Amino acid sequence: MRLLKTKLIIPFFILISIGCYANEIKELDRLTVKGNSFVNSENETFVFRGLNASDPNHLENLGHWNKSYFEEIKKWGANIVRLPVHPADWNERGKEAYLKLLNDGIQWATTLGLYVIIDWHSIGNLQTEMFQSDRYDTTLKETYDFWRTIASEYGNNTTVAFYEIFNEPTTYGGTLGSANWDTWKTINEEVIGIIRANGGEGIPLVAGFNWAYDLTPVLNEPLDAEGIGYVSHPYPQKRKQPWDAQWTKDWGFVKDKYPLILTEVGFCGPDDLGAHLPVISDESYGEAITKYCDDNEISYVVWVFDAQWAPRLFEDWDSYKPSRQGEYFKKKLQSYNYD
Amino acid sequence: MRLLKTKLIIPFFILISIGCYANEIKELDRLTVKGNSFVNSENETFVFRGLNASDPNHLENLGHWNKSYFEEIKKWGANIVRLPVHPADWNERGKEAYLKLLNDGIQWATTLGLYVIIDWHSIGNLQTEMFQSDRYDTTLKETYDFWRTIASEYGNNTTVAFYEIFNEPTTYGGTLGSANWDTWKTINEEVIGIIRANGGEGIPLVAGFNWAYDLTPVLNEPLDAEGIGYVSHPYPQKRKQPWDAQWTKDWGFVKDKYPLILTEVGFCGPDDLGAHLPVISDESYGEAITKYCDDNEISYVVWVFDAQWAPRLFEDWDSYKPSRQGEYFKKKLQSYNYD
Amino acid sequence: MRLLKTKLIIPFFILISIGCYANEIKELDRLTVKGNSFVNSENETFVFRGLNASDPNHLENLGHWNKSYFEEIKKWGANIVRLPVHPADWNERGKEAYLKLLNDGIQWATTLGLYVIIDWHSIGNLQTEMFQSDRYDTTLKETYDFWRTIASEYGNNTTVAFYEIFNEPTTYGGTLGSANWDTWKTINEEVIGIIRANGGEGIPLVAGFNWAYDLTPVLNEPLDAEGIGYVSHPYPQKRKQPWDAQWTKDWGFVKDKYPLILTEVGFCGPDDLGAHLPVISDESYGEAITKYCDDNEISYVVWVFDAQWAPRLFEDWDSYKPSRQGEYFKKKLQSYNYD
Ligand SMILES: [Mg+2]
Ligand SMILES: [Mg+2]
Ligand SMILES: [Mg+2]
Ligand SMILES: [Mg+2]
Ligand SMILES: [Mg+2]
Repeated sequence: MRLLKTKLIIPFFILISIGCYANEIKELDRLTVKGNSFVNSENETFVFRGLNASDPNHLENLGHWNKSYFEEIKKWGANIVRLPVHPADWNERGKEAYLKLLNDGIQWATTLGLYVIIDWHSIGNLQTEMFQSDRYDTTLKETYDFWRTIASEYGNNTTVAFYEIFNEPTTYGGTLGSANWDTWKTINEEVIGIIRANGGEGIPLVAGFNWAYDLTPVLNEPLDAEGIGYVSHPYPQKRKQPWDAQWTKDWGFVKDKYPLILTEVGFCGPDDLGAHLPVISDESYGEAITKYCDDNEISYVVWVFDAQWAPRLFEDWDSYKPSRQGEYFKKKLQSYNYD
Repeated sequence: MRLLKTKLIIPFFILISIGCYANEIKELDRLTVKGNSFVNSENETFVFRGLNASDPNHLENLGHWNKSYFEEIKKWGANIVRLPVHPADWNERGKEAYLKLLNDGIQWATTLGLYVIIDWHSIGNLQTEMFQSDRYDTTLKETYDFWRTIASEYGNNTTVAFYEIFNEPTTYGGTLGSANWDTWKTINEEVIGIIRANGGEGIPLVAGFNWAYDLTPVLNEPLDAEGIGYVSHPYPQKRKQPWDAQWTKDWGFVKDKYPLILTEVGFCGPDDLGAHLPVISDESYGEAITKYCDDNEISYVVWVFDAQWAPRLFEDWDSYKPSRQGEYFKKKLQSYNYD
Repeated sequence: MRLLKTKLIIPFFILISIGCYANEIKELDRLTVKGNSFVNSENETFVFRGLNASDPNHLENLGHWNKSYFEEIKKWGANIVRLPVHPADWNERGKEAYLKLLNDGIQWATTLGLYVIIDWHSIGNLQTEMFQSDRYDTTLKETYDFWRTIASEYGNNTTVAFYEIFNEPTTYGGTLGSANWDTWKTINEEVIGIIRANGGEGIPLVAGFNWAYDLTPVLNEPLDAEGIGYVSHPYPQKRKQPWDAQWTKDWGFVKDKYPLILTEVGFCGPDDLGAHLPVISDESYGEAITKYCDDNEISYVVWVFDAQWAPRLFEDWDSYKPSRQGEYFKKKLQSYNYD
């Protein structure tokens, strides 16, 4: 198995238009799950290192939802971009108008050869329908409808490689009521069924409790579903250093049997903008998490390509000047030799 | 057992007003379930052949919600009319205003000696609260409240003979999530309990999956409820010809033990207005379904007495000129000799 | 064990401000559950005799939500006041604005040495989400969120001694669908978990079916929760006289093992304003219920300190002239010698 260079990917794209610009990508290769890996139609393994966008509605409101934003993401070395759709933003803009934003983003990503994760960016407990704050407020009914909509709309769009069912499940220490893995498993299986029945050919991604950190229940009770991947968000303060053995026990072991993608990693210093538990750390975290991922062929996506949200990757919208973690991850992402 | 002529029914009506016009009907006889039949207070079996109205709110918006619409239905030979209340229409007009429409319709039906089915006209999956389109969108909570309202309002009105709990249950090939008979059975039993507790003296009607086509689970798991009827919507393309043996296996067998009413049947040609799966056929379907019903004393109601909805029964609102299926069913309904 | 005089309570208050007026109470002692009693930090038993306010939003709309209303309640001899928050009022005013009303009321109560019950004043069936009328309409999701909000806001405020989870559970004779104790028990346990996790240090109160009259299921299936109390609303017409033996069987037996508080009692004559089942009676009820409570150290709170709601305690807002039951209960409450 080898890790593919992005440039090598291009030959696999199917050029569906003759009249296109030279090298402009028209369609990406469909990714699927094989064993514990994401593979293309040639059975070649893909490992992703990418960046999180902030919410498309938020970016549009700020005037930053445009192709140059995606070009900058590409320039930083990403081969995937995650689009976190916040329930409140989904409702604020309305389904039809939000889909137009996604249409544009997916088109820009396609042209640049970036894969896309669509992420239903709620935080909380779907079992009691209680959430961390109003921006994350949703219902089970709305969550089902969101995935029906996304699968109907983008199910055969190969750029939209991943459907991240629910960003960060948590009872927030019981303040959002109780939850149990059995019910959570059932809810995810229901969503996967809905995605597939509506034509979703991409890969559903499933997270565990503790804000998507904990995948231990997967050991004995994996989902009854084929062709999916698992997610963890191992921010630095989730565990004390040294991290490796704990990471393996908490979520890394999943990679023995299933594909694994860390859809949020990142850090900032204690005095940086928006610093908060559990993201405060330093470059030692960057080194540790990227080494852990590289050693185990685990994909990761850094949070967040925005100048205000935390931990941020750049400091201002004009220059995209990297923040502290921006310096680290920009260099790291650009260093990969996919040949 | 004999099939009653409408004229013979009149003597059973209780005339509650002395000052009424001669022969104007004031109240219909209460229908109940006896064995596998609908019977009146004299234990005489009633078999229904009727027509579906379109939504009362829709008709009111078009200026067609009036007594002459009901008179035309009567003229075509119907002894029952089904009123499909769409959730979106129920919400658009508002509960109080919608009840006024129903009050009028029920009064016109009473005067003409037509029985009424009130039908909660949703299509989809109440278990996930996902529906075929926005017009059918509802919740379990709203469905319970609808039936509480209808039973409170019309529970002792003998014209409102039937409460059709949910028009067409379907997972739409899983696109609306999963459903199972056990839960569906429980939901219907809950609604029946609500109807009865709120004074609903009429007959609850229960449909099965596959857009109300499939009643096979009734064989081993009938509802735990007395005094109810079952429903099927055997549109022509649900099965390939010859139909009879398949119909018996899919829903006709129910009539061995329970009353059965096909609250939607109908057909149109492939080029007729609004032609769509599963309604495309020809007069051979009309012959087959009416013969099957007549042979087995199964009631049926033709969809739909409207010039735009499909398959339509007439072509324009001024003349009520029958459509192709209108020709067939008008003649058929008028042919019954109920003596 | 002895019943404490209010005056004796004052030494237990922790004066948190030095610059306060002499004797102005700054904070009440935290109450907890010990065995079958409510106790303070000195393990001294508290028995409550208090009054129900009407809804704070309703009072604010009438111009009566002010300190003099609380002073009058205190003057009548109450040592506790219950604040019934109606779901429709909660929504009408909005969460933030309603909390401001509660802030004021809790502050006035504190200063006067009155404990407070916050009561989610719905009537109906949370299991089907059907309610007695629109003013009581809510959902399970909203109920969870209400208690999350109240516990976050007032969890360490010692004046807010009690959280009454749901005023009056009832299926209304099945018209609101079915309910069962197992599910009701689970819902209450979930709410208690939410309250505690959000920092609610007060005492959750749990009611049974039949409009909070019936606690018989507690005999064999008490809640799996520590530190809670049970509630009954034994209005006079719930049982025919003589009451005592029936009360013991229906809810009084609970006091053998758990603290018990009758958060609504009261009566009016058949011709009094708003007279309705089950509140019609006379002073013999007042004598019986207060003697039953006093003999068994059961707390009670009279419904309702308002001139229009029924059964009312006073006849006009200017003079607070007692109604018939007002005469009875004002004298009774003022008669207690808590030494
Ligand atoms: Mg996050
Ligand atoms: Mg609901
Ligand atoms: Mg239909
Ligand atoms: Mg809900
Ligand atoms: Mg009450």
